[in-house]
This record gives sequence, C-alpha cells and structure tokens, in this order.
Amino acid sequence: MTDFFQDHMPENVCFGCGIHNPDGLQIKSYWENDVSVCKWMPEEKYHGWADLLNGGIIATLIDCHCMGTAMADAYRRENRSLDSNPVYRYATGSLNIKYLKPTSTHHEVELRAKILEVKDRKTVLSCEFHSQGEKTAEGEAVAIRVYDSSQDEGDNPFK
Amino acid sequence: MTDFFQDHMPENVCFGCGIHNPDGLQIKSYWENDVSVCKWMPEEKYHGWADLLNGGIIATLIDCHCMGTAMADAYRRENRSLDSNPVYRYATGSLNIKYLKPTSTHHEVELRAKILEVKDRKTVLSCEFHSQGEKTAEGEAVAIRVYDSSQDEGDNPFK
Repeated sequence: MTDFFQDHMPENVCFGCGIHNPDGLQIKSYWENDVSVCKWMPEEKYHGWADLLNGGIIATLIDCHCMGTAMADAYRRENRSLDSNPVYRYATGSLNIKYLKPTSTHHEVELRAKILEVKDRKTVLSCEFHSQGEKTAEGEAVAIRVYDSSQDEGDNPFK
Repeated sequence: MTDFFQDHMPENVCFGCGIHNPDGLQIKSYWENDVSVCKWMPEEKYHGWADLLNGGIIATLIDCHCMGTAMADAYRRENRSLDSNPVYRYATGSLNIKYLKPTSTHHEVELRAKILEVKDRKTVLSCEFHSQGEKTAEGEAVAIRVYDSSQDEGDNPFK
C-alpha cells in the first residue's frame, strides 16, 4: 500500500493537503525513489477559464506537495518513519511559479518534486506540473521548518 | 458606487475572480488612484493551519487581483471603459510570492497592486498583501494578454 505523506499529519486541516479538511483538495504525495509524486483529479469548480485549471489552484497544489515533500525528506534523512518523533512541520517561505501551457480540468494532473538544497531549517524544492503528458507549469518553493516537537512541545500549530 | 473590475468580465467562471463561479472566492478589485485594491474576507475552510489562511489561497488572491488589474490598466491606458471594445483578457505568465508572516482567517485581508511595467501584451505587477495592518505577503506577477477581441473574434476563452 502506498505510504502517503499526508496520512502522517494528524490534525492537518489545510485546504490543500489536510485529511481533516472535507472542503479541501486533499492531495496525496509519495516517494518514487528521489522524486515525490502527487496525482490529483481536478474538479470543475476549480477552473480559471472554462475547462482550464485555475492558476491559483495549481499554485496551491505545488505549494502543499512541496511542503509535504520537505517534511518527508527531513524524516528520511534521519532514517525514521513519518510517524516517529520529533514531529516536524514546514511552512512556505516563498513560491515561484511559471505557467507554461493551459491545464485541462478534465484530466488527472501529476506533480513531481525534487529536493534542490537543504540547509538547517530550510529546504529548497523544484516541482514539475504535468497534464496529459505535457509539462504545463513548473515551480520552486522554499520550505521552512516552523515546528519541531523536540524544540517547542507546547506550540504545535496543527492543534 | 464602486466600479469593480470583475463586474465587467461576462461569463467569467474563474475560481478566484469569476462572478459566475458560486464556489469561488469572488474577489472584487477597484482603483484607488494608481493602486488597485481588493478587500476579501476569508472563510474558515481556506485555512492552511487552524486559524491561518492557506498560502495557496493567498497565491490565488494575488494572481486574480493582478490579472484583473492588468486588464483594467490596459483599458485605462486607452481611455475607455471596461465595458468597451475591444475586449482584453489576461492570463498569468508567472507568479512569485514571499510569505512574510502568518495571515489570520478571522480578519479581512487587503491586497494593493501596482503596475511595474507594460510592454506589448505583457504587464508586470507588484502586489502587497495585508492583514490586520501588517504586510503578511508580497508578490510579483507577469500578466499576458491572451485575448483581444479585435484580433481573434471567434476565440474568447471565457465562452
């Protein structure tokens, strides 16, 4: 069974990636060797123009997929499972996106992210966004580790 | 009565700015001299972490506010109203956002965008994002005029 990053983020209500947000996009990300993958099927209400996926939703998908990937990468570097302690959570420092082609709302999209750099609490990632076999957008995200349960037990922003 | 840009975009179903998307954010933008302003009240479902606005929704707001501003600026440069012909519509070429501080979901946010550069079909804009009197994010967007009714009458992507 695929081990999705987001299934190990209890109390996550995030619009993009929270399993506890019934109104959210509920993305699921997983490792495929050194690339993290997310496949997601658009809903019509998220169009920008008719039949085309909204650019802000594309940004949301890239953002949340990259934050989940930064988290999973940090655990992996410490050779431990996503259910182990300490708990790490990441927030977005910056997000840069290029829109290359229109993205259909009628086909599943696929995001593929890679780690570019890790330095202390900061992780830099690149992400390709594909639809129907074509790259329709690409992004770079800076993720900041804003929660570490070993440092600050009483301040989990997910609670 | 305030003249909102988005009230002059018939058939706009965009998740961020379409008046014809009942599930969308339905932003409204207007001129305050050379700055375009958008005030928007978050809904709880758009949180990232509890009580904090999702970064992807912040990106969506900045994106759509900037595209509307690029459109309104183009009409204004031609000294004509937003209901006049030819019809121009813009799509996002790129979007760069820095997240500076958490943004509450419990208070109205205010976006303030400026035109940085206009060259042919391309408009570059900056946008500040404020909550509770503080700048919590800032962005830069490149808008591309992808529809001009005087050039291509039969291909309105809003239809």
